[in-house]
Amino acid sequence: MDVLTAQQLKRIAVVGATGYAGGELCKLVGAHAGMELVSAMSARTEGGARASRIPGEQAVETYQPELFDSLDGVFVCAPHGASAPVVLAALEAGAAVVDLSADFRLNDAAVYEATYGLPHPAPALLGEAVYGLTEHARAAVAQTRLVANPGCYPTSILLPLLPLFEHGLVPQDSTIIADSKSGLSGAGKGASDRTHFGNVHDNFLAYGVGTHRHTPEIHQVAGTDSIRFVPHLLPVERGILSTIYVQPTTGVDAQAVRSCLAERYADETFVHVRASGLPELKDVQRTNRCDMAVCDADGMVVIVTVIDNLLKGAAGQALQNMNLMLDLPEAEGIPCV
Amino acid sequence: MDVLTAQQLKRIAVVGATGYAGGELCKLVGAHAGMELVSAMSARTEGGARASRIPGEQAVETYQPELFDSLDGVFVCAPHGASAPVVLAALEAGAAVVDLSADFRLNDAAVYEATYGLPHPAPALLGEAVYGLTEHARAAVAQTRLVANPGCYPTSILLPLLPLFEHGLVPQDSTIIADSKSGLSGAGKGASDRTHFGNVHDNFLAYGVGTHRHTPEIHQVAGTDSIRFVPHLLPVERGILSTIYVQPTTGVDAQAVRSCLAERYADETFVHVRASGLPELKDVQRTNRCDMAVCDADGMVVIVTVIDNLLKGAAGQALQNMNLMLDLPEAEGIPCV
Amino acid sequence: MDVLTAQQLKRIAVVGATGYAGGELCKLVGAHAGMELVSAMSARTEGGARASRIPGEQAVETYQPELFDSLDGVFVCAPHGASAPVVLAALEAGAAVVDLSADFRLNDAAVYEATYGLPHPAPALLGEAVYGLTEHARAAVAQTRLVANPGCYPTSILLPLLPLFEHGLVPQDSTIIADSKSGLSGAGKGASDRTHFGNVHDNFLAYGVGTHRHTPEIHQVAGTDSIRFVPHLLPVERGILSTIYVQPTTGVDAQAVRSCLAERYADETFVHVRASGLPELKDVQRTNRCDMAVCDADGMVVIVTVIDNLLKGAAGQALQNMNLMLDLPEAEGIPCV
Amino acid sequence: MDVLTAQQLKRIAVVGATGYAGGELCKLVGAHAGMELVSAMSARTEGGARASRIPGEQAVETYQPELFDSLDGVFVCAPHGASAPVVLAALEAGAAVVDLSADFRLNDAAVYEATYGLPHPAPALLGEAVYGLTEHARAAVAQTRLVANPGCYPTSILLPLLPLFEHGLVPQDSTIIADSKSGLSGAGKGASDRTHFGNVHDNFLAYGVGTHRHTPEIHQVAGTDSIRFVPHLLPVERGILSTIYVQPTTGVDAQAVRSCLAERYADETFVHVRASGLPELKDVQRTNRCDMAVCDADGMVVIVTVIDNLLKGAAGQALQNMNLMLDLPEAEGIPCV
Repeated sequence: MDVLTAQQLKRIAVVGATGYAGGELCKLVGAHAGMELVSAMSARTEGGARASRIPGEQAVETYQPELFDSLDGVFVCAPHGASAPVVLAALEAGAAVVDLSADFRLNDAAVYEATYGLPHPAPALLGEAVYGLTEHARAAVAQTRLVANPGCYPTSILLPLLPLFEHGLVPQDSTIIADSKSGLSGAGKGASDRTHFGNVHDNFLAYGVGTHRHTPEIHQVAGTDSIRFVPHLLPVERGILSTIYVQPTTGVDAQAVRSCLAERYADETFVHVRASGLPELKDVQRTNRCDMAVCDADGMVVIVTVIDNLLKGAAGQALQNMNLMLDLPEAEGIPCV
Repeated sequence: MDVLTAQQLKRIAVVGATGYAGGELCKLVGAHAGMELVSAMSARTEGGARASRIPGEQAVETYQPELFDSLDGVFVCAPHGASAPVVLAALEAGAAVVDLSADFRLNDAAVYEATYGLPHPAPALLGEAVYGLTEHARAAVAQTRLVANPGCYPTSILLPLLPLFEHGLVPQDSTIIADSKSGLSGAGKGASDRTHFGNVHDNFLAYGVGTHRHTPEIHQVAGTDSIRFVPHLLPVERGILSTIYVQPTTGVDAQAVRSCLAERYADETFVHVRASGLPELKDVQRTNRCDMAVCDADGMVVIVTVIDNLLKGAAGQALQNMNLMLDLPEAEGIPCV
Repeated sequence: MDVLTAQQLKRIAVVGATGYAGGELCKLVGAHAGMELVSAMSARTEGGARASRIPGEQAVETYQPELFDSLDGVFVCAPHGASAPVVLAALEAGAAVVDLSADFRLNDAAVYEATYGLPHPAPALLGEAVYGLTEHARAAVAQTRLVANPGCYPTSILLPLLPLFEHGLVPQDSTIIADSKSGLSGAGKGASDRTHFGNVHDNFLAYGVGTHRHTPEIHQVAGTDSIRFVPHLLPVERGILSTIYVQPTTGVDAQAVRSCLAERYADETFVHVRASGLPELKDVQRTNRCDMAVCDADGMVVIVTVIDNLLKGAAGQALQNMNLMLDLPEAEGIPCV
Repeated sequence: MDVLTAQQLKRIAVVGATGYAGGELCKLVGAHAGMELVSAMSARTEGGARASRIPGEQAVETYQPELFDSLDGVFVCAPHGASAPVVLAALEAGAAVVDLSADFRLNDAAVYEATYGLPHPAPALLGEAVYGLTEHARAAVAQTRLVANPGCYPTSILLPLLPLFEHGLVPQDSTIIADSKSGLSGAGKGASDRTHFGNVHDNFLAYGVGTHRHTPEIHQVAGTDSIRFVPHLLPVERGILSTIYVQPTTGVDAQAVRSCLAERYADETFVHVRASGLPELKDVQRTNRCDMAVCDADGMVVIVTVIDNLLKGAAGQALQNMNLMLDLPEAEGIPCV
């Protein structure tokens, strides 16, 4: 990208800057050649400690919607429910918005209410929000003012499945198992028994079996409710590995599945399909990549995907989307290696 | 157990005392009220360092089969292939033998050769060896002189599946997914790129997809090859969690599966079926327990089991078996909490 | 120890059973051949979850001092300030008490107030409480009804220093550095930013430099305020390693220091002085041992000690003391390997 | 930095690209706006696996000194002893060389031989090599063709001490304790018992007490042998924290020490002196910063420093030096936040 003058830099704010995803976004935007981090805001007042990690020593401010005036883009990293009002304020101020919460991922307000236990806070916007799985929504993202950034687990599961459904290599109504394992940052920065070091370190567990809130999101985007999703908690800081078991259409084998995915993602900067070998968390931590491999297990096809839940699973994909919305190069400022 | 005089203590040796399982056995036998650890042997000469952790500061000796004379029991913790000759020597000396290697787990020498890449070293013994999944082989174990101790992954997978097959709650020919995650001690004490801290810590990976050597063992004992098994490597020292996906027989739900397992294991010291909640690695680390839970996921039944791979998955179950063989109380000297 | 009938078992309660030290005590007492765990109590009502880990599935009860009647011994694992009233109630009921809080470690109420920021809650008992660094207070412990169990850091620092002062090998007024590193369980089970996995894992830090509350305790027992103590937080669950730098009396070298300590602790079950090599956390985790080594560094003597902060640094030493108070064998029921 | 044409990019090679420091350098050089990574070489043939992590998928080549022709700069990341011949070849080819081994850090060949157990492999170059603690050797680094990049531990210890000696705030002949703790990457990528996950994870240990090879380096640069240095091994991947105990000159307190350091480093990009609070490993991991704090402990001054051992302790400082040697902006391409 050419070097921009200060006047040309896109003016950006991050709301929820003290959380994991918000913190990543502050770092990425702060170092972005085409963006300026105008404000890092948080509803939590005790943001001071983390602020020192933001480039240029920018302090975290209390949330003030009036700061949205004259901004080009706003990243909203608030909890579901709390996010929608911030999104509304930012849209009204004329900013492009990427919402990292779940508020605009489900296009059916009733499913939202059943899943999140509260009436949808802004149903009028549901029709407008674009589900920003970037590699599958590029054109729509570039033209919308509101992107619902995908959940971390769904990103790791949908990237391999969508092309297979599209090309009929896997029947959409066949049972698919998605056994996913996530690092602890997926649980957020809040202090609880769940995030206490003594309960995570040297431990491993399944949770939310049959009940995790990402299930309806996966089903909606995949266009099928035949995917069984079980999340687990890893004693690592960041990264998701999903092991996905599919029974392909008769006559389709692992090699065909691999070729389909390799071809679909051949030109993608951030999605890599391996010719051989299995990807590990370490391969993608602190990058925006999704690496995947396809194996045969006695006729069943096993797909292993890895992402960094804070980047391709959150802040990195959000920046991909914002770049597109603001007509900047899609990969600008996003770590790939 | 009543306190025994020294003359009554069963005389025991551990071969392969410098490995993970052998080290655990030395500790367990050393503290066992009915056993005396007569010799801890190893083919590796550099065993000195670890010896200090064995009760009574017992040194690790070079392997010498003549030490088997006058022993009651021998635990063999050698690699596959190297184990069989030690087993033969110990049997000849009249000792009861629990072999923790894979040498006598598969009852078909051809499957052994296909799996382990070498001709079976002692095919004549295959008919005699009892597969020591203790809760399912108690009577046979008590009457044999040679137990093949089950693999760690198979133990975590077979304990829930066997009763379900037996009672017809899950069709034996339906596709079953066993997605297993193991701590690093399962990879042994050998130094390699695989066991280097920098490649394990803060990392996670799948391996051996479709090719892991425990697959034929699982298939043989389950009586079906419809189980798809994928192992993963956790950045923890010990423990296995298996997430098992089964499609039950029509009309059978998660509650029925749970009841079947709860009933089957109600009187077992070491197998616990939870009425609610999900077991974690921490719950069973450093115990010989297998804890399990049964959940529904939209009609599919998900079973989560946890064991300590070095205890119920190796040394603990081996001691259960040896206790039975030597007519000692089955749970004697085996940690349960 | 001879097998006791139920009538002869010492009747014991643990108050604060949901914390780290209390949980360890419940496990130890539950498996103790001479004790019966009559009650595990906690002021926290959400104790249910942990209770399942206590032998015999004993539930954790709400704190009720009337349960102290007819008990032989009570372990008090409450926070400082909250501990003293429980101690008083237990003493009144006639039980032997080991208090694991800081309430009775400092024998000067003014120092207590300056250190802990509240008036001493029971100054009348200060004269009576015995500081239970067992190897240095055996006779007094056996005769008192109230033991103040030492802090974890002080235990790791005082065990090597006391004999050196006693024998004049290190001048009591020379500057001594104690650089200590502790596992996270030392910070307790409370959920906070400090104990959040994301702030501990893959991290390391110093804290409380010049201000840690264990400093006055170390100074009092050592009889000198020339010890500079700096604690650090390790990303491990349990264990303390202290690196202690002393400038010995003229003419005294590392070998002399080592001999003095080796001789002093030659007959001790739980304190091991190494002839060579350096102890690691792993050597003593889940044991009550204190292992130490003495090295020369250009004329300065460096002593490295390791303990498990939850055992020799808390529950294990507490049980040593209670065994003495109740006239049971001192090492009974306490893990050593 | 202005955007350069390909012709203007400095042509760089990294020798030892499969090790930790070499791998970091490949990533940094590959993303550097003023450099081109012409070759990543390794004496180890199995470099293929890691090569995929180098930007642009550059493969790791076998070491070939003829590739040095026409290069501007060479980073040598070979073991001591093996490094000198590579350095000689690169110098002969006319390249600027930063050597990350210990071969040119000690200016006395006899001390080198005593420390590393082999005669110095290129004593003629000792007079020429500049010890590249960048903030203290900027001018000399800019004018030399050979920089000896400092050891990781010495960097963390010398940065705070040198200004204090210079200004007389700490007597150079007073006893100083440097208690240092390093992540495992400091032990290199070689597989050994020492680097096995089972011996590092959940463990902590001191090593090399009184004998570590960085001691003579620290003494030489500090101009005094009164510093006692004890290294420890942390169960983290990267980072060093040094706790340094100094007894300042009479009348000097912690505040004066802090002011001296703050003033000395006020204009430095990579050295930060905190006005309050203590730095943690997490604050500097994956940056080239050295953060430090100064505390009082009853009249003794305690300085805590943190660096990333692979960046400020190796590759990052090496790039600082190379930037200076090649007349590029010193901080170009080096992570700071």
